[in-house]
Amino acid sequence: MLSLPFVPAGRQPLYLQLYQYIRSEAEAGHLVSGEKLPSKRQLAKQLKLSVVTVEGAYSQLVAEGYLESRDRSGYYVLPVAVRPELAAQSPVPNVPPLQDGERHYRFDFATSGGDPSSFPFSTWAKLSREVLSSRDQALLSAAHPQGVPELREAIVRHLYQFRGIRVSPEQVIVGAGSEFLSTLLVQLLGNQGGYALEDPGYGKIARIFQANGARVCPIPLDGQGLRVDRLEESGARVVHITPSHHFPLGTVMPISRRIQLLEWAGQAPDRYIIEDDYDSEFRFSGRPIPALQGLDREGRVIYLNTFAKSLAPSLRIGYMVLPVPLLERYRKELLFYSSTVPSFEQYTLALFMERGHLDRHIARTRSRYQARYAALLRAAEDSGLSRMCSFSGGEAGLHLLMTVKSPRSQPELTRLAAEAGIRLYPLDTYYLCELSKDRFCTYVMGYGKMSEGDLQDVFKLLSTIWLF
Amino acid sequence: MLSLPFVPAGRQPLYLQLYQYIRSEAEAGHLVSGEKLPSKRQLAKQLKLSVVTVEGAYSQLVAEGYLESRDRSGYYVLPVAVRPELAAQSPVPNVPPLQDGERHYRFDFATSGGDPSSFPFSTWAKLSREVLSSRDQALLSAAHPQGVPELREAIVRHLYQFRGIRVSPEQVIVGAGSEFLSTLLVQLLGNQGGYALEDPGYGKIARIFQANGARVCPIPLDGQGLRVDRLEESGARVVHITPSHHFPLGTVMPISRRIQLLEWAGQAPDRYIIEDDYDSEFRFSGRPIPALQGLDREGRVIYLNTFAKSLAPSLRIGYMVLPVPLLERYRKELLFYSSTVPSFEQYTLALFMERGHLDRHIARTRSRYQARYAALLRAAEDSGLSRMCSFSGGEAGLHLLMTVKSPRSQPELTRLAAEAGIRLYPLDTYYLCELSKDRFCTYVMGYGKMSEGDLQDVFKLLSTIWLF
Repeated sequence: MLSLPFVPAGRQPLYLQLYQYIRSEAEAGHLVSGEKLPSKRQLAKQLKLSVVTVEGAYSQLVAEGYLESRDRSGYYVLPVAVRPELAAQSPVPNVPPLQDGERHYRFDFATSGGDPSSFPFSTWAKLSREVLSSRDQALLSAAHPQGVPELREAIVRHLYQFRGIRVSPEQVIVGAGSEFLSTLLVQLLGNQGGYALEDPGYGKIARIFQANGARVCPIPLDGQGLRVDRLEESGARVVHITPSHHFPLGTVMPISRRIQLLEWAGQAPDRYIIEDDYDSEFRFSGRPIPALQGLDREGRVIYLNTFAKSLAPSLRIGYMVLPVPLLERYRKELLFYSSTVPSFEQYTLALFMERGHLDRHIARTRSRYQARYAALLRAAEDSGLSRMCSFSGGEAGLHLLMTVKSPRSQPELTRLAAEAGIRLYPLDTYYLCELSKDRFCTYVMGYGKMSEGDLQDVFKLLSTIWLF
Repeated sequence: MLSLPFVPAGRQPLYLQLYQYIRSEAEAGHLVSGEKLPSKRQLAKQLKLSVVTVEGAYSQLVAEGYLESRDRSGYYVLPVAVRPELAAQSPVPNVPPLQDGERHYRFDFATSGGDPSSFPFSTWAKLSREVLSSRDQALLSAAHPQGVPELREAIVRHLYQFRGIRVSPEQVIVGAGSEFLSTLLVQLLGNQGGYALEDPGYGKIARIFQANGARVCPIPLDGQGLRVDRLEESGARVVHITPSHHFPLGTVMPISRRIQLLEWAGQAPDRYIIEDDYDSEFRFSGRPIPALQGLDREGRVIYLNTFAKSLAPSLRIGYMVLPVPLLERYRKELLFYSSTVPSFEQYTLALFMERGHLDRHIARTRSRYQARYAALLRAAEDSGLSRMCSFSGGEAGLHLLMTVKSPRSQPELTRLAAEAGIRLYPLDTYYLCELSKDRFCTYVMGYGKMSEGDLQDVFKLLSTIWLF
């Protein structure tokens, strides 16, 4: 009978020490494939260990494939094709953290998100507690793949009230942000035939379509928005647009162009329009611009929106409304996907909307943003900079365009601002095609996070460094 | 000068009534393209309205593209190509709700998720409150695209403690569940060359790969798990496996097969192994089976796991660990994607892990599930059904296999159980290829949600209906 000269040492459990000993003997080739080991009882006696200890070691070795247990015969060594380098413990790879690389700016006109300080924290916390204490089981079971019904119903009411859109909760799909939903859309619509985009536009959307294997067709704009006449020649089958407030130019697509766009979609089967309504809640004057979705009679418009602007980007809750024929395709092909938003967040948001908190929050922040918009124009006036700057595209949303007339070049103006601690975003960087780039010096100014004092400081600084 | 015979009526704001009147006149063709409207002041006088009211109506009509404002000249009617059907308000589509279609079962052996009643609700609620009250700003800003650092560090500690895996937090990517992460992986690895899958296996994974445009190659298993010798001929470039506890068979892939698999990956550039470690926390005896990831020296193993089994499926938090070369590719190509998990959930889970609650919860539920596993075997014994049933694959996880020897066919046994209120899942349904289907009558029994009393009832019922 094979003898195993095992000597316990150290503090680890005995079964573990014995397991490691036999394992290393096998890996070192001291135990040969096919060799029979002593029975559990024999080895226990031989090593003065309990049978339970030997059993623990043997069963782990069997589970990991070092030994084989043959019925009514005993334990046999299995072949181990261990490469020598496997014996060593693998070190933790030394991965450099993501380079922050960005210098710190005192003032940043990035367009992402609104003002976090306006988030109604105590209300949210109160509703969270309410959800946690009242919905135990519902919170833990998997949510409906399209999102919990309460939230979809609240979204439908919101859409009717804010956008005049009438849809059924069955058409709504809740998901972890508009980026995720765009990924899902490529899966639903297929990546053949080209995805048209506004140029300039929201740069990420091109990257998302490309990462999902779709060809991207940048389409230029004119004063009425996307040039629908260019769609046909582009060969695109799907078009992504921001018709109610173009990002970043602020253009509102007039009714005639909207109808032209819908007609384009109707001219071939399987043409679709993705209407990204990213900041429609923040129109400052007049009624909201009617959504394209409401004009669609042929089931070609997919309405997409999120709560990133109206509440907080970190919530990661977006939604889309599918026209009925696409909904049927989604239910056939993609309904197997689980909901990507935690049920807890979904119930909390539903309650937040049902009780009118979202309406009140939007009304409050809208007037706050409107005041900031006015403060920006005033600060430019006060600083004397308005002599060289003109502003446009600010009737809605949380950004506007500032065009500077200066003998200095745009890179120089941008650099001077950066040196003074002001981060500006040239319109150039929103273009996909080199050729159509802005010939002037225009900046996209996201002012959602700026206080009125900040805006005064920024324009005082800019007038000092740009005028002299 | 054009005269507009507008008469206010009803309760809506006057500017809105005027807007609607002019809009419908334009749509009806009573106002012709190019026609000049009265100035704001003239119209206000003519209709006895305030100038502000007319201004509100005009600017809305300009924004929507019904009118054009020409500098120092006035307002002109634009062409409206409205199709007659647009005038009518679009009705809410009548979409049937998702057919529940499923009859209600008293006992359901589905394998999804664990027992929600074990979720440590009060601890989670307490930590949620702590996060909400201490992290205002961090909660609202966009999270790091790979997940908040605190959570990635907690995951790294968890992986070392439970799986002996040593990785850097920089390698971890947190996302909204393993389904979403699998979608991201197809974007990262490309959909060329085929994705191999275990057959039988987790059916959804095939659908996810297919929905993302990848060809799926089902690979049969033998007693040691996936037949690596079949990988070469399949032409696959990526393989998805559950080596530590095969789903649903329960097979543990022995060390020699694991090494064979790693060697397959090393034989060509761009071959990868997705190690889905979905229920490794619930191994009942001995040490955990070492993860494949720990044996990988060439950067070919992607480790994937979630908190769906260990905490709750509705949390929608999963993570993956990328080998360094793939991490570099991810950072170059896909880092633009925002994190898909709400920051709030990420911070709460990080705190839950840091304070040791997850460890305690896993220890508690593991012994609870082990007791249920024993209870299931006991219930089968007590009922007399163990004469015709054998059990396997239950050393880990929350399911086992039950093979029934009966003169009756599997569909008949399944139907009899269903009529008695017991939902059983035949192993057949986990196969992708018809030909390799189970010739016997085997069921995949997820017992995670079953109480011991339930299990006694189920087997008493089954013995009554199956034995007689």
